[in-house]
Amino acid sequence: MPLYAVVLAGGRGTRFWPLSRRVRPKQCLSLDGGPTLIQRTVARLAPLVPPERVLVVTGPDMVDAVRAQLPGIPEENLLVEPAPRNTAPVVAWTALEVERRGGGTLLVLPSDHAVADEARFRDTLAEAAAVAATGGLVTLGIVPTRAETGFGWIEPGAYEGTSAPVVRFVEKPPQAVADALFAGGRHLWNAGMFVWRHDVVLDAVARHLPRTAEALAALRAGAGLAETWTRFDATSVDYGILEHHDAIRVVPADFGWSDVGSWPALAEVLPDRGWGSGVAEAVVAEGAGANLVHAPGKLVALLNVKELIVVDTPDVLLVTRREDAQSVKNLLDAVERAYPGRYS
Amino acid sequence: MPLYAVVLAGGRGTRFWPLSRRVRPKQCLSLDGGPTLIQRTVARLAPLVPPERVLVVTGPDMVDAVRAQLPGIPEENLLVEPAPRNTAPVVAWTALEVERRGGGTLLVLPSDHAVADEARFRDTLAEAAAVAATGGLVTLGIVPTRAETGFGWIEPGAYEGTSAPVVRFVEKPPQAVADALFAGGRHLWNAGMFVWRHDVVLDAVARHLPRTAEALAALRAGAGLAETWTRFDATSVDYGILEHHDAIRVVPADFGWSDVGSWPALAEVLPDRGWGSGVAEAVVAEGAGANLVHAPGKLVALLNVKELIVVDTPDVLLVTRREDAQSVKNLLDAVERAYPGRYS
Repeated sequence: MPLYAVVLAGGRGTRFWPLSRRVRPKQCLSLDGGPTLIQRTVARLAPLVPPERVLVVTGPDMVDAVRAQLPGIPEENLLVEPAPRNTAPVVAWTALEVERRGGGTLLVLPSDHAVADEARFRDTLAEAAAVAATGGLVTLGIVPTRAETGFGWIEPGAYEGTSAPVVRFVEKPPQAVADALFAGGRHLWNAGMFVWRHDVVLDAVARHLPRTAEALAALRAGAGLAETWTRFDATSVDYGILEHHDAIRVVPADFGWSDVGSWPALAEVLPDRGWGSGVAEAVVAEGAGANLVHAPGKLVALLNVKELIVVDTPDVLLVTRREDAQSVKNLLDAVERAYPGRYS
Repeated sequence: MPLYAVVLAGGRGTRFWPLSRRVRPKQCLSLDGGPTLIQRTVARLAPLVPPERVLVVTGPDMVDAVRAQLPGIPEENLLVEPAPRNTAPVVAWTALEVERRGGGTLLVLPSDHAVADEARFRDTLAEAAAVAATGGLVTLGIVPTRAETGFGWIEPGAYEGTSAPVVRFVEKPPQAVADALFAGGRHLWNAGMFVWRHDVVLDAVARHLPRTAEALAALRAGAGLAETWTRFDATSVDYGILEHHDAIRVVPADFGWSDVGSWPALAEVLPDRGWGSGVAEAVVAEGAGANLVHAPGKLVALLNVKELIVVDTPDVLLVTRREDAQSVKNLLDAVERAYPGRYS
């Protein structure tokens, strides 16, 4: 069966504000001065999945930015979801799209994550596709590197070859639980990367999300997406399908993954240059360390400052501390109240 | 005798880098979002000295910037010193220029200081001019507000009316001396503001700086400034003239003066807006205080940062701490070594 990639590019993340904006979400950003996250996502798939089998799901606000960044992707592969309805509708709809194209195995992937070892990434996906060919729903399970409370965890059963049945999904755990899961050495992170045959996932949709299956039937019968979209169950693939399904398998993945979920997470994947890490035309620093700087095109002069986040854009300058990065969203809320729509 | 203002705009200060540059020195900057320091200097003189009697002394690098900022000053009043040779040559040369214009009393003033009470500033200068009319060299003595070690101090003798003879100039003192001078309540700051008749200061030059007097004679005889300039004594008016002269008088001055000598000194003269002070299109802040921000045209978002200096220019972004402002010059030296001429 041919492999299709489904790149999920509907995210409206605010955690990279002021760099990310409504019309320029995280996946469309260059966080390291090179290609954008979505460009890297498609490029690293290329040896495994050619552009004509890469489907990109995005929103009406962002499709222009996505199109501009991915000139190699055929126009008909840009799938515009009429409104955000979580991931289960996207999974069902993209399976139908692959069915329409003659069928295949779908690699459902975020558009805004980082992968250090791209060859290993492709090898892992190919293994997962081989597992999925036998008829299960397959999720990748990231081999954890810390007791992270911000991700869901996966408990695998007994391995057969490269995969194991999923015994249990663990929602984002409290720290003590995360500590135990990490110490146990068996659990994996749920990174939202899935592999399945179009017919297998459509069968699962029919069993667990009957309203969504009806909406799919309407689409097959020629109904328009816009009027059908509201009939899809607005739930996540995890809650709507995977947690109810009995044939989920996990393939461990260890390819230097990061969800690049925040400025500090970005700092983790960029090289430390003494003063910290980030993007600038040049940096001259004395007594500086552990800063994250994003100021493309500028000389950044840092004197005796540590653990700051400094993000310079044409109309907004953010200065905060690394430990406060998660509160930038509150600051953005204040900005939005004071200047509705102007800086968001 | 008519009053002439001599505005000294030759300074090449680096303490406001990256805002100040070789071709845009401190006096040509807007530090509060309004007119530049030199524009304010000329504007606050206007009720006392009309533009046609304002002489502006500047350097070849800066004359274009000065001219652009002072469209009301006649071209022949822009006096371009061929090279920096300290203040004594400027004092002698400008006295000669006023002699050529028919004679008058000179108000010699920095171009880059701040004055809170402009009416009182003019009143003080008018008083000083009245004192100078009787034949002394007059210096303004700022009523001190702190035990400052960065300025020279002036010891006045017994007052007669609004002025007193200068008993002694005290060079920049160590802290213990400054503490004693401030506690004593009699000493004043030397702010480099002088008032004298052209003929009186030319007599003083003839007595104390004979080489300079010869150079002036050459200028009177038609020699060009460029070839004559190197024959002027390269010394300050304080060391070259005032310390040797026996008829120096001081007029106390208390008009909310600041030399705006550094980013922290600027913060002292700007209103505190909770997060700190400075210039921006807008500021949204949480948990921020005592910062100095200069980012015209931008929204500045500050989250839990205190006592920082953040200066954003089109090509350079400086981030440091208020307590380290005096070391920015070292950082600029490092920038100059790494990128000669590019950012200075």
